[in-house]
Amino acid sequence: MRGVDIVRKKRDGGELDAEELQFLIQGCLDGSIPEYQVAAWLMAVYFRGMTDRETGELTLKMIESGDRLDLSGIPGPFVDKHSTGGVGDKVSLILAPLVACFGIKVPMMSGRSLGHTGGTLDKLEAIPGYRIARDPEEFRRILLQTGYAMTGQSERIVPADRVLYALRDATATVESIPLITASILSKKFAEGAESLVFDVKCGDGAFMKSLSEAEELAESLARTGRKLGRNIVAVITDMNEPLGRMVGNFLEAEESALCLRGDTEGREDLMEVTLRLSAWMLVAGEKAKTPEEGVDRCRKMLAGGEPYKRFLSNIEAQGGDPKAFERGIGTLRAPIRRTLPASRDGIIQRIEGYKTGLASVVLGAGRNKTTDSVYPYVGIHFFKKRGEPVGQGESVLELYAESEKAAEEALSILREAVHIGPPGQEGRPLLPRSLILKEIVAL
Amino acid sequence: MRGVDIVRKKRDGGELDAEELQFLIQGCLDGSIPEYQVAAWLMAVYFRGMTDRETGELTLKMIESGDRLDLSGIPGPFVDKHSTGGVGDKVSLILAPLVACFGIKVPMMSGRSLGHTGGTLDKLEAIPGYRIARDPEEFRRILLQTGYAMTGQSERIVPADRVLYALRDATATVESIPLITASILSKKFAEGAESLVFDVKCGDGAFMKSLSEAEELAESLARTGRKLGRNIVAVITDMNEPLGRMVGNFLEAEESALCLRGDTEGREDLMEVTLRLSAWMLVAGEKAKTPEEGVDRCRKMLAGGEPYKRFLSNIEAQGGDPKAFERGIGTLRAPIRRTLPASRDGIIQRIEGYKTGLASVVLGAGRNKTTDSVYPYVGIHFFKKRGEPVGQGESVLELYAESEKAAEEALSILREAVHIGPPGQEGRPLLPRSLILKEIVAL
Repeated sequence: MRGVDIVRKKRDGGELDAEELQFLIQGCLDGSIPEYQVAAWLMAVYFRGMTDRETGELTLKMIESGDRLDLSGIPGPFVDKHSTGGVGDKVSLILAPLVACFGIKVPMMSGRSLGHTGGTLDKLEAIPGYRIARDPEEFRRILLQTGYAMTGQSERIVPADRVLYALRDATATVESIPLITASILSKKFAEGAESLVFDVKCGDGAFMKSLSEAEELAESLARTGRKLGRNIVAVITDMNEPLGRMVGNFLEAEESALCLRGDTEGREDLMEVTLRLSAWMLVAGEKAKTPEEGVDRCRKMLAGGEPYKRFLSNIEAQGGDPKAFERGIGTLRAPIRRTLPASRDGIIQRIEGYKTGLASVVLGAGRNKTTDSVYPYVGIHFFKKRGEPVGQGESVLELYAESEKAAEEALSILREAVHIGPPGQEGRPLLPRSLILKEIVAL
Repeated sequence: MRGVDIVRKKRDGGELDAEELQFLIQGCLDGSIPEYQVAAWLMAVYFRGMTDRETGELTLKMIESGDRLDLSGIPGPFVDKHSTGGVGDKVSLILAPLVACFGIKVPMMSGRSLGHTGGTLDKLEAIPGYRIARDPEEFRRILLQTGYAMTGQSERIVPADRVLYALRDATATVESIPLITASILSKKFAEGAESLVFDVKCGDGAFMKSLSEAEELAESLARTGRKLGRNIVAVITDMNEPLGRMVGNFLEAEESALCLRGDTEGREDLMEVTLRLSAWMLVAGEKAKTPEEGVDRCRKMLAGGEPYKRFLSNIEAQGGDPKAFERGIGTLRAPIRRTLPASRDGIIQRIEGYKTGLASVVLGAGRNKTTDSVYPYVGIHFFKKRGEPVGQGESVLELYAESEKAAEEALSILREAVHIGPPGQEGRPLLPRSLILKEIVAL
């Protein structure tokens, strides 16, 4: 078997078999297939795609390229949620303790912020003392103790994905649906999840800008996951505006705590997405028959206060200081503050998600390169959201920065991101609308 | 400017500008763009193609990547011929001395055999003592002295083509029409040719199997060449059967000499292609008004005997021994001989070009890898060609090998290559048919 023949087969639209994919992944890791052949294969996949069978096999070979987390001895069910990334997306921080309260184990391997989108790990690490699980033993211990555990992608889990992702990033082949599918599924299955609920974000603040792209990815995840014998629900959610009122690392941990404590006013968008995804996790874990029943059970559980306690106990289990965290709520902010005054009387028409994400990167909440570090206490607090009235000169938002320069730059981006129009003349509906655009259920 | 952005632009069907192509070619040569990015770009070009402007710019940037042959002080016109490669294709060996007799300078930078096709340089080097010009000075001297000169691609001429070709070969992107166009044109223009006549071979024994593929390449060569201000004629010729009666290195040099001496019986196919291409060179070099007039003048020139003298004087100028060569005609053969007896009485329906080429590679006349060496005296002599009658047991061909094993293997391939049918019942026309399928003229 030769690398060039595999490239040619894919170039001509052929379906690679398990043996060929094994050869490719192995050669990619041990260097026996040169990077330029892998790059040519990636670009051929970009143009030719992959069959579901092929995507499934690639996922398996990627999983087999490294270790799996060993969850034996821990009672299930194991259900995880994955988001394709958005702005203000702190859903995992609320959903994990909530779902864990139902006896579902949530083994979460999350990512860091990249580009205009935030990352769950950066948000968690903004909690004083919090550190993500460093090894499988620690992960098991925390999972047993608090029902959910947070870790990052290790060197030993799906090493093929790290090699392939670096090449995709350098060869403009990140956007291939089957490659995205195999990358996501391999990591999620290697961490031990039996069932998966996906939050496929769609819109200006997401990677998938159009509904059709989001549908394509959602369907690919569902079909491939089912082919590998897993339960999959893919929920396509609107990501045209930031979720909730806060964007930033500590700010989003803070907002998650507020939601868990019942302070959800003006955060209906965030709670709608969180409850729907949580509900599907309950359905996948057989704790509810329908998502409607699941949402209902989740609301009751939140009202009982147990999820917030679970959140604090997870902070403690992961090395954090719950007391210091609670003291920091409303106070842990980067030193330089700026507000954005409304340019006129009117109604907030729209807050652009992508520009908000860019502003948060400028502030240092996110990364341009994977090697950048992030500031925990910078970010943006929106006092007003879409549909809310505002008077001229009133503060629409406040931002927290580590430098004057970053503050000014972010403010000028945010000025462009916020659209205010006169009440009653707006083109788009300002009444509450659902962020749940479509659901693909493969249970 | 970043490599990945150039890859993305081409992936999305964009047209790269001169600056971007310069950045790419330069980065390819100095290593500042990693091979995996170049490979991804090549595959994107395979799928997206290039505009004529883009192909022309790429050609220019490739030429500028190295030296050009300096032909200043030598009177022109300079006209060259290029073949895309076939089986038994010794056209250059006859055409160069013939055209040179009209005062046209033919600076020939040729290639070596690769895959199932032969190479002009290997055929010439089978002539005792013949060596291709090693440096520009020698090349100039021979060109001035005998009107044509033979050399290979040097390290310093179009170095970008060597780098790109090696990558294309390893990434299944050789078959891209614009990449083939830029590769061919850059080398031909760097050697100093003002006008070019292309023999775009088409059929089973060629790289372009279908007429539509051959047309696509012929048109791309003509359009791009014209864009660069050169005169181009692209002649598409039939390459379903070996040209002439002999395949092998010395054997083809021998057959060329026979043709130059007037012994053209049973070689009408070879002479038709040679005369037509030569005639177009005369038209391009303003020595004939039409190809018909050119063919007529070439026939008369051959009859006068001057081209054969020119051939011998070139052998001498290139370090060869014309006497030893002439003594070798009919005798310089590899030691092991086998004949293929006809399996039945009948008419030769077809001799497959591709299988004949494969048999010659098995004998050692050609190469599987560029680093393989070739045997000068091995090959195949066809006693019968398409349309000729044969009696059962009569020899259709004789082959010359360096080992019993190679002889047997080649014979079994040739047995499959030769098709004999009953006279009068054949499906395909056996009357002489023209091998000139189409001509694209951009003069």
